[in-house]
Amino acid sequence: MKCRICRNRAQVHLRQHNLALCREHFVERFEREVLKTIRKYRMFTPEDPVLVAVSGGKDSLAVLYLLAKHGYNVRGFYIDLGIDGGIGYSSVSREKVEAFQEKFGIPVEIYPLKLRHDLAIPDLVHHRRQQVPCSMCGTVKRYLMNWKAVTGGFQVVVTGHNLDDEVATLFGNTLRWDVRYLARQGPYLPSNHPRMAAKAKPFAFMSEKEVALYAIFNGIDYIRDECPFAEGAKSILYKEILNTLEERSPGTKLRFYREFLAFREKVLSGLPAEEAPPLRSCTVCGMPTTLEVCAFCRLVGRKTPSEVSS
Amino acid sequence: MKCRICRNRAQVHLRQHNLALCREHFVERFEREVLKTIRKYRMFTPEDPVLVAVSGGKDSLAVLYLLAKHGYNVRGFYIDLGIDGGIGYSSVSREKVEAFQEKFGIPVEIYPLKLRHDLAIPDLVHHRRQQVPCSMCGTVKRYLMNWKAVTGGFQVVVTGHNLDDEVATLFGNTLRWDVRYLARQGPYLPSNHPRMAAKAKPFAFMSEKEVALYAIFNGIDYIRDECPFAEGAKSILYKEILNTLEERSPGTKLRFYREFLAFREKVLSGLPAEEAPPLRSCTVCGMPTTLEVCAFCRLVGRKTPSEVSS
Repeated sequence: MKCRICRNRAQVHLRQHNLALCREHFVERFEREVLKTIRKYRMFTPEDPVLVAVSGGKDSLAVLYLLAKHGYNVRGFYIDLGIDGGIGYSSVSREKVEAFQEKFGIPVEIYPLKLRHDLAIPDLVHHRRQQVPCSMCGTVKRYLMNWKAVTGGFQVVVTGHNLDDEVATLFGNTLRWDVRYLARQGPYLPSNHPRMAAKAKPFAFMSEKEVALYAIFNGIDYIRDECPFAEGAKSILYKEILNTLEERSPGTKLRFYREFLAFREKVLSGLPAEEAPPLRSCTVCGMPTTLEVCAFCRLVGRKTPSEVSS
Repeated sequence: MKCRICRNRAQVHLRQHNLALCREHFVERFEREVLKTIRKYRMFTPEDPVLVAVSGGKDSLAVLYLLAKHGYNVRGFYIDLGIDGGIGYSSVSREKVEAFQEKFGIPVEIYPLKLRHDLAIPDLVHHRRQQVPCSMCGTVKRYLMNWKAVTGGFQVVVTGHNLDDEVATLFGNTLRWDVRYLARQGPYLPSNHPRMAAKAKPFAFMSEKEVALYAIFNGIDYIRDECPFAEGAKSILYKEILNTLEERSPGTKLRFYREFLAFREKVLSGLPAEEAPPLRSCTVCGMPTTLEVCAFCRLVGRKTPSEVSS
């Protein structure tokens, strides 16, 4: 197969676009599409300070790399979650992040959860068996990312979520027809509170495979293992199902997502504001929450403001 | 396991309801639920003449049986589609319908497509290879059912669609986020034109397994084979996927459907009327259509009113 642009040997075939490309033109197209997404959704300008949530996986390292390459004002933020199961998940991912920083000279701040809060994810999983690990870990990461952005002068938190992540989440929300979640899902979520940063997903339209190729073609080494706690997560089942559908009809995922966004715009945006409880300030840490004490403070067991160490 | 009602030995375990029942109480519950659905959606009263679309499968024979048993004013209508592939699909299904009629004394009119239109489904499939067989067959069945209802004085056509059918269709419509289809999907579709009968699905909340058990427990013999033309149909893939989800979380299908109906009511019913093209009369047969000549007349090759034989 030949590259559609230069007729040299193609290295990539994107079935969903029926498009063959060489390495160079794949990278060029990938970056063009991502930059288009950033502009289309007015995610941020090259001047805005942007905090990139980094995990050591391909998606977050690749988005940090791409933004830095194109002159965006980025800083990475890595939370060492202290997950030592499997291959030593957190140690390996931290090594990947440090090697990335070293190789490309892009700054990433490391935030050691255990050191700062005397508590790592395995402790939470162990003490709160009735809760799903991914749900608790999500609370911790979302809180700290937002806290870092708000206290560090960043208006937006960028994550590496790709199309496969987005459609798996959308699939779950659709199975429950959850209007409140559906109305908020998309590549960009604006801030709705002075202490709540906007959230942006520049890779929302790029498939997992495309992101992996982009990372590999740019010499980005990343952690390939799944988190050991994610085993049996519903999102993994949803991804398998969506892969089956994509295999049968290439382009299904992209269509599902794009048509949803059109539906959201047309149908859900006109809805009267959902009766979401108003945001107030957590009595312990002061960050926005719908309850008296926010989910993070309850999770890490902070009871009074004096216990806030960070 | 014991029947929750009478403590005799249970014959059925409904995982989605975590409910074990003996044969008698299963049948009692099944009928109660179906009658509740009929009343809740104001589908029809015991006096209304109701046309039941009968295929020879479990769903349509069971719904005809249940309605007749409870005193509804029903007549079955079976279209012999002339599908001779596989085991002789149409001959076998027709035999099942005739045996049913004989055994229970419930009237079913037989409509032989080939005899009336000099054309059977295999002819259509053979001549129009670019079209999906199930789509053409659907056009033929919907048209003839509606034609029979309208010309025979029935205000409503009942079909045996069960929960598994409904969620597979919903799944497909949701993958495309097709507002027009989503806004119209549900257990009851009222008439929107004097020559268009209402459509009712009294089994919409009963799973395929429940309907099969109901049919078997009532001595209804039915055709078990899939139509040979349905091989590879997307609806079969969707059903497999939904079975995987149900297996993992019993009750997923019912929740998906119920939550969708609540969403439809809350979100889609408030939409300004979709810009569906207005209904007019087919210049050949006079039945409602959005085009000059309706899909059925185009399919069977009727060009002028004089060619209408039925």
